[in-house]
Amino acid sequence: MPIEMRLARIIISEINENQFVFLREVDGDRQFPIVIGIFEATSIDRRVKDIPRPRPLTHDLLVNAVEQMGGQLDSVIIRELREHTYFADLRIKLNGEVIRIDARPSDAIAVAMTCEPPLPIFVEEEVIEEAMSAD
Amino acid sequence: MPIEMRLARIIISEINENQFVFLREVDGDRQFPIVIGIFEATSIDRRVKDIPRPRPLTHDLLVNAVEQMGGQLDSVIIRELREHTYFADLRIKLNGEVIRIDARPSDAIAVAMTCEPPLPIFVEEEVIEEAMSAD
Repeated sequence: MPIEMRLARIIISEINENQFVFLREVDGDRQFPIVIGIFEATSIDRRVKDIPRPRPLTHDLLVNAVEQMGGQLDSVIIRELREHTYFADLRIKLNGEVIRIDARPSDAIAVAMTCEPPLPIFVEEEVIEEAMSAD
Repeated sequence: MPIEMRLARIIISEINENQFVFLREVDGDRQFPIVIGIFEATSIDRRVKDIPRPRPLTHDLLVNAVEQMGGQLDSVIIRELREHTYFADLRIKLNGEVIRIDARPSDAIAVAMTCEPPLPIFVEEEVIEEAMSAD
């Protein structure tokens, strides 16, 4: 069953190629990190800090395209962990249906934080267990 | 009137924050540079060089979302130059209509190069004239 989690922390290091986001249970204490790239980390960070963006950045463009096409961004689900890679879906409501778009968690979280209010982020229970045991 | 142009060159410098793409007329010799960020330059470069992407990168996610929602990416138009900033639209066909999404040229060109075949890139005649006179 998917568990709702929230973005708890972003760690950006300029001397390291790998950046981290930490997801933490909304109704619990479990948390785990996901390694992401510097671009996506910076994009998430700008959104969390609400830094003004005079022109639409890439994740803004994605959200604007979905909305102008009549879709409604619904939620993010991190559905699988395979060989140290997390797989997520971006869920979009369109004409009463839910469409799932395969995404990296970093993009999915950046999109979630672009929306107002931010989209809920779910993680499959077995992904949480695998992520915690991998520590 | 919009003039069709093509991506003629990408200049990526690791010691400089500003990267460049050059657009050149398809049926002519005029060309001009657009300053873009390193992330967008790298994204365009990967697409031009056809470097495999095991997971969808941000511009792939955008293209996949548009297509799974039933839209068809049509073209890019660079429509305005104002205070050294270029403004573009991404044009999407949906249910017989054309939707225009405001975009930075860097994102629009990255999306154009993600599509197979690449989307045509148009530039308004007056933008070309202003861009050339600004040199």
